[in-house]
Amino acid sequence: MATIAALATPPGTAGLAVIRISGDDALRCTAAVFHGKDLASVPTHTAHYGSVRDAAGTLIDEVIATVFRAPRSYTGEDSVEISCHGGSAVTRGVLAALLETGARHAEPGEFTRRAFLNGRMDLVQAEAVADLIHAQSRDAHRASMEQLEGALSAHVREIREKLMHAASMLELSLDFVEEDVSFLSAEELLELVREADRSIGTALDSFGTGRLVREGVRVALMGLPNVGKSSLLNALLETDRAIVTDIPGTTRDFIEEPLLLRGQLFRFIDTAGLRSTGDIVEREGIARTHAIMREADIVCMLSEATEGQRGHDALSELFPAFRPEQEVLRLYTKSDLIDAGLRDVLPGAGIPVSVRDKVLLDQLRDRLSEIGRDMCRPTERARILVTNARHADCLRKGRAALQRAVAALGAGRTEEFVAIDVREAIEALGEMIGEVTSDDVLNGIFSRFCIGK
Amino acid sequence: MATIAALATPPGTAGLAVIRISGDDALRCTAAVFHGKDLASVPTHTAHYGSVRDAAGTLIDEVIATVFRAPRSYTGEDSVEISCHGGSAVTRGVLAALLETGARHAEPGEFTRRAFLNGRMDLVQAEAVADLIHAQSRDAHRASMEQLEGALSAHVREIREKLMHAASMLELSLDFVEEDVSFLSAEELLELVREADRSIGTALDSFGTGRLVREGVRVALMGLPNVGKSSLLNALLETDRAIVTDIPGTTRDFIEEPLLLRGQLFRFIDTAGLRSTGDIVEREGIARTHAIMREADIVCMLSEATEGQRGHDALSELFPAFRPEQEVLRLYTKSDLIDAGLRDVLPGAGIPVSVRDKVLLDQLRDRLSEIGRDMCRPTERARILVTNARHADCLRKGRAALQRAVAALGAGRTEEFVAIDVREAIEALGEMIGEVTSDDVLNGIFSRFCIGK
Repeated sequence: MATIAALATPPGTAGLAVIRISGDDALRCTAAVFHGKDLASVPTHTAHYGSVRDAAGTLIDEVIATVFRAPRSYTGEDSVEISCHGGSAVTRGVLAALLETGARHAEPGEFTRRAFLNGRMDLVQAEAVADLIHAQSRDAHRASMEQLEGALSAHVREIREKLMHAASMLELSLDFVEEDVSFLSAEELLELVREADRSIGTALDSFGTGRLVREGVRVALMGLPNVGKSSLLNALLETDRAIVTDIPGTTRDFIEEPLLLRGQLFRFIDTAGLRSTGDIVEREGIARTHAIMREADIVCMLSEATEGQRGHDALSELFPAFRPEQEVLRLYTKSDLIDAGLRDVLPGAGIPVSVRDKVLLDQLRDRLSEIGRDMCRPTERARILVTNARHADCLRKGRAALQRAVAALGAGRTEEFVAIDVREAIEALGEMIGEVTSDDVLNGIFSRFCIGK
Repeated sequence: MATIAALATPPGTAGLAVIRISGDDALRCTAAVFHGKDLASVPTHTAHYGSVRDAAGTLIDEVIATVFRAPRSYTGEDSVEISCHGGSAVTRGVLAALLETGARHAEPGEFTRRAFLNGRMDLVQAEAVADLIHAQSRDAHRASMEQLEGALSAHVREIREKLMHAASMLELSLDFVEEDVSFLSAEELLELVREADRSIGTALDSFGTGRLVREGVRVALMGLPNVGKSSLLNALLETDRAIVTDIPGTTRDFIEEPLLLRGQLFRFIDTAGLRSTGDIVEREGIARTHAIMREADIVCMLSEATEGQRGHDALSELFPAFRPEQEVLRLYTKSDLIDAGLRDVLPGAGIPVSVRDKVLLDQLRDRLSEIGRDMCRPTERARILVTNARHADCLRKGRAALQRAVAALGAGRTEEFVAIDVREAIEALGEMIGEVTSDDVLNGIFSRFCIGK
């Protein structure tokens, strides 16, 4: 395939940067700019010191070039990784010199796409690579690592293979339909389809948890204006925000602040916007607040500690309904203003908080991270966690087809009908792991990758 | 030495990140977390696929570990570079696992400090590494690359060696002072010292240019409020700003916007702050504006094109004095409002600009980058460019000592006095390249490095 090159490490100033080249001419292109050992003759997996010069012979950097020969490389093609000094002028210079040799700049995700196309990984694993590098929390890291290792793929592949066996038996029966020979009894078929349906269900059930793991636990801070929502949010963010960045691709109608608490990823939903609309009791404000509240996994109801039961009642009136799976916490702000003894008897199992009290803030962090950890814990089969909406869609499609098959069997339809449904389920699972995938699907997946991956 | 580890690539989300380990136990520490080949037995400069697991056996990532054995490594010590997936959770996990094995987190610049201490590079080269990764423009890149290659060090070393020869001759003469034997005539000594003085002078002369190359050409935009300074600055920044970041360590009393134009680094000085003080004719405002103007390498005097000669005169009255080496450009803003014919006859060789006219903006960019290129061109000996204030200080100290030696010789002082001055010059040059350097100096230099370098 054509030779591609790109910066594989983040842009910015640092000791090192790595530029990756892959393709049929990766060694020739690199050798054209690399002065030192003749890379064409070196063994795979060896690192070589040398300099990179442009076509005019101008020295760009002193580098280490590491050669990975096909098929023992990330992409499965001949590849070179050039480790140069970090910084924009150097990396631009090295990349520009490579692009002069006939390599072209890689598109987003193109290295991983080639790894997929060359059979180095299936589609679920390729997508796990993107999730892995975006992972911020321990749970997200673990889930994507497990997918990269192939746990989810293996689960799906096993179901798919059983269904393929059933399908071939069904088709064999169809071939011999005039002889009235059946290679799979209706009961056996029904049991097989039902078992596949259950296995898919297990995976699908994990998607609720998986989404929390991937995107973070949503926490809504609810309360009347000036109760201290923003101050609390800022106090929580203060010590922990630096390393958290936005997960690309998630659209939001309101501002969310990602926050890592004790390794657990949260998305705090800032209802500050509501304040600017004036009276929170105003219709529109209530509607939006309710929408935010419905979407949240944890709802924090904030009132002032000095208001006691009164504040508690006022809030309960404004926000009466919760989903059963939501965790609702009653936080009493400015608790430094009330007597320590009173803090233990705050209404509604209330939690005293104060932006001025580091101990109370830490207790809140502990409480939230504990709840988050419970919510993100895979329920049954720990190794299977569906975190990706595309995977969930494929699983749902597969399941729907299997349920049509069960209905067809129940209605005494001929094997021909059942075979169509089973084939559809096989195709949906195949689409998930990339056994049958259109270019459109691949384009959609890899365009969301970063360049250099 | 103790084993140190750190992320060597910029933080952020990307395909790859590299974690660097160096020290006596680098291989043992890596082997404790790396599962795959036994790294203790592999040859230097080889890359190995494997997985990193923490002490509990939890899989953190699949990685490539490249082994560099002493002395053939960046630091000169046993080193390993672990290339893992980019992203915060993975890099934190790999680094944490390594730190559990007894390695400690590297301090800023510690890898390069070790490279210096182990004789892999001199101090000027070590500092060039930091400049190289911060380089944004082609010129800054070239200058730091030349320093890294050793051009400046060689120049200084050559002067220093000649002075050391002179010093030893002088000391020999002192040993035989009673025999009245002289190993170096007064004339020879004077010529030698003068030549060294001239050579240092050549290097020092380049520092003006070197500073422009390193920090960028300062452009001050001067003009009455609302003449369009900010709009022009924004229009210039629009297309070019993304890759430019601040050079750390430069302190400023006013806001500067770094801007890369045609590969040339500029620092546009924003006098917007002046607007908030109200009347620019007010005393304090004038004083500050004059200070900014004096510091600038290029002064852009802005008035509105429709004001013509009147605007030109008003400005000339406000800002009358320039240094001869300053480039003064008269820009006429909002030139889209005047007839195209008039644009050629604007007073004071005026340059028509308009934020609405892409062609005029591009012409201004061309003009500025042309001037910048001329200013950043090394005058004589192209391979010697002093860009670092510490180096300039050392050179100045050396030169002062040599000039004292010349004066002493002229005054007919004894060789003893002259020898002291020459020794001082030798020491100053030695401090520059790191032949004689205190821990304090090293701490000062390397603390300004980033971690992982």
